[in-house]
Amino acid sequence: MVCRVCGKRYPVSPINFCTDDFGPLEVDYHYEEVQKVLRREVIARRSWNMWRYRELLPLDGEPTVGHAVGGTPLLKAQRLGEALGVRHLWIKNDAVNFPTLSFKDRVVAVALSKAREFGMATVGCASTGNLANSVAAQAAAAGLETFILVPADLERTKILGTAVYGAKVIGLKGTYDEVNRVCTQIALKYGWGFVNVNLRPFYAEGSKTMGYEIAEELGWRFPQHVVCPMAGGALIGKIYKAFSELHQLGLVETPLTTRMYGAQASGCNPISECVKSGRERHKPIRKPNTICKSLAIGDPADGYFAARLIRQTGGWAEDVTDEEIVDGMLLLARTEGIFAETAGGVTVAVARKLIEQGRIPRDEDIVLCITGNGLKTQDAVFDAIETPAVIAPTLAAFEEYAGLRAPAPSTVPALV
Amino acid sequence: MVCRVCGKRYPVSPINFCTDDFGPLEVDYHYEEVQKVLRREVIARRSWNMWRYRELLPLDGEPTVGHAVGGTPLLKAQRLGEALGVRHLWIKNDAVNFPTLSFKDRVVAVALSKAREFGMATVGCASTGNLANSVAAQAAAAGLETFILVPADLERTKILGTAVYGAKVIGLKGTYDEVNRVCTQIALKYGWGFVNVNLRPFYAEGSKTMGYEIAEELGWRFPQHVVCPMAGGALIGKIYKAFSELHQLGLVETPLTTRMYGAQASGCNPISECVKSGRERHKPIRKPNTICKSLAIGDPADGYFAARLIRQTGGWAEDVTDEEIVDGMLLLARTEGIFAETAGGVTVAVARKLIEQGRIPRDEDIVLCITGNGLKTQDAVFDAIETPAVIAPTLAAFEEYAGLRAPAPSTVPALV
Ligand SMILES: Cc1ncc(COP(=O)(O)O)c(C=O)c1O
Ligand SMILES: Cc1ncc(COP(=O)(O)O)c(C=O)c1O
Ligand SMILES: [Zn+2]
Ligand SMILES: [Zn+2]
Repeated sequence: MVCRVCGKRYPVSPINFCTDDFGPLEVDYHYEEVQKVLRREVIARRSWNMWRYRELLPLDGEPTVGHAVGGTPLLKAQRLGEALGVRHLWIKNDAVNFPTLSFKDRVVAVALSKAREFGMATVGCASTGNLANSVAAQAAAAGLETFILVPADLERTKILGTAVYGAKVIGLKGTYDEVNRVCTQIALKYGWGFVNVNLRPFYAEGSKTMGYEIAEELGWRFPQHVVCPMAGGALIGKIYKAFSELHQLGLVETPLTTRMYGAQASGCNPISECVKSGRERHKPIRKPNTICKSLAIGDPADGYFAARLIRQTGGWAEDVTDEEIVDGMLLLARTEGIFAETAGGVTVAVARKLIEQGRIPRDEDIVLCITGNGLKTQDAVFDAIETPAVIAPTLAAFEEYAGLRAPAPSTVPALV
Repeated sequence: MVCRVCGKRYPVSPINFCTDDFGPLEVDYHYEEVQKVLRREVIARRSWNMWRYRELLPLDGEPTVGHAVGGTPLLKAQRLGEALGVRHLWIKNDAVNFPTLSFKDRVVAVALSKAREFGMATVGCASTGNLANSVAAQAAAAGLETFILVPADLERTKILGTAVYGAKVIGLKGTYDEVNRVCTQIALKYGWGFVNVNLRPFYAEGSKTMGYEIAEELGWRFPQHVVCPMAGGALIGKIYKAFSELHQLGLVETPLTTRMYGAQASGCNPISECVKSGRERHKPIRKPNTICKSLAIGDPADGYFAARLIRQTGGWAEDVTDEEIVDGMLLLARTEGIFAETAGGVTVAVARKLIEQGRIPRDEDIVLCITGNGLKTQDAVFDAIETPAVIAPTLAAFEEYAGLRAPAPSTVPALV
């Protein structure tokens, strides 16, 4: 492992920052070794899930958690493309990821497989959302004991999709920051695996598989533009890292000129504000205020790296209001039949904005990263959904409702 | 197409019953032709989704709806197997089917692709659940106009996952039977495609892909036992039909001796009651009363065929109480990390019952069909979930809660 700030090397172990400068640690690989094994034909013969790129993931042995994670569809989004006025739009759909319907299943599969390699029997995280769902589910399947720490004022409905897996959910009477601090203390003292604390370097690598899959699904090439939601700011960087690795390994031959675009909610936009204002480092947001809870991290751990990457690749970042988020969710559902969570609404709405601004051109390949499922954030769209019409239970009433009083011309002959 | 009662043949068209005897029509294939093309190597080269078996689906051309449907994981369920006391347990997990998280995506993909071949621009169904979600989503992606008819007394939260896709949801002031009758009238008069009315023969064929995938995922062999939830009774029959076809085509060489087991809720058990009582035909249930709404069809269209199949294969049927259903859901979530809807709870609980009864042996391959996602029926488990403990936001408070007052022995050294 290597420090992203000073480059100091560390042995593989459950630590996440450099003891010299507190820089985040990142996993490094022997790419020459990987190159010898990982060829397109080899990958093609493997099952269609994230482990087909296993040489580029930080496990010593075979994965033992999350065998079926990943392998989500990349869809040509014809109708959404028309709505946004662009020609080649793609959706990478992790809203149907296995098992808990968000891209977090990828990171958690790596983190928990690694936890087992470290001999850990107890794992956990501080989260109320996608991450908690995924840790709870995959730890249950692996037979690991699980502690999920959350702020105590959380509604009970929000923890259902975590507690159902038998994870011990504990409410702490404090803020998220305080909850995180306790997690760090537990991880340090007991050596338990907290996926986004002491397992973070391994965890974060899991996100790369979204990038590998995108390139492979495009026929081993890179899209020109990728729009990615940002919370902590890790995912966007890891997708780009995946592309770089594929290029370095010769798996994709064309040069890597992909531009990365970051998407946030205006109610919590530290990274997009940083990019737009030309600041080098983001200003933390004290009180996030947006319906998009999954992206509402006020002081993102990888904010600096995300902003730098966006600039270096010639991309941009934007943020959108709650109203635009809901519009984005509905547009995606109504053009492509994909019900994404609020983060998906952020991504679609930001893409629309960047296209309208002329920052993303209309005739090149654009990939939107949809990272979570709409069934988890149903409240967000509830008020925007039409109330059903109510009619009598007869054909005549239906014809009246649908404006079909006279038999409608039909391309298909009536059947009887 | 051929009548399942009298064998009379019909040209391929949007009709669903024999004009002589009202017997249901079923699609027939030229298996000799299929056999020439559909070999294991050919299938292996195709994308991992339901269309890899396209020669066995009733389309004339390429599918135009639901390109990415199917290809769900078959998981070795070690921990659930231990809990149930069996050695070789598998879960076919359609709770993560694309795009709307139930096996209905398979049937709807076929029905709507067929609707387009028939030149239909308007489609619909009578449903409040998984079927409505899937029709609305896939029709939206295909740009088809969609009408979903539901009883008017339905809660608004129940239609959110359908209305979000822009489908016109119409509440009819009547029972489900009345709603269904109006659908049939509309389909007949206007030639619109109602997926489980005039498109039913095509629709139902989509379920077969669950069977093909199970056999392929087992390495081209059949499991000895399959436990399948039943509502209308079609799915269980189609999985078996899939196995028969694979055998007939020589894709699986071993004889087909699989026993089929049907699972229902005790509050709506027409088919399991029919099997258990030895009756030839089921008695309709007037007032279904169970938390498992997705299986609550009182007078199942394919009830007769399902009961006959179960008997002929040497299987059995059982039903379980609401309490057992919830227990089944929790057991599945806590051993395998799969949050299934109530129908999944039915399947797991029935499997447990049949194993305890000695009807399913403990040392042979058993496949459980999990057909829908738990995020759609969260109410069902809400009361069964533990309330979180609430503690102060400190390490000491956590240690007290977790019984860790003295530093716990750990397999991993403390890190600092
Ligand atoms: C649905 C969803 N999308 C995107 C993200 C952003 O990921 P990152 O924190 O790596 O920026 C998250 C993170 O929580 C998320 O839950
Ligand atoms: C989740 C789920 N499982 C199983 C079934 C049963 O299918 P069938 O009606 O073909 O018996 C249904 C049908 O609605 C369903 O929604
Ligand atoms: Zn350093
Ligand atoms: Zn007939």
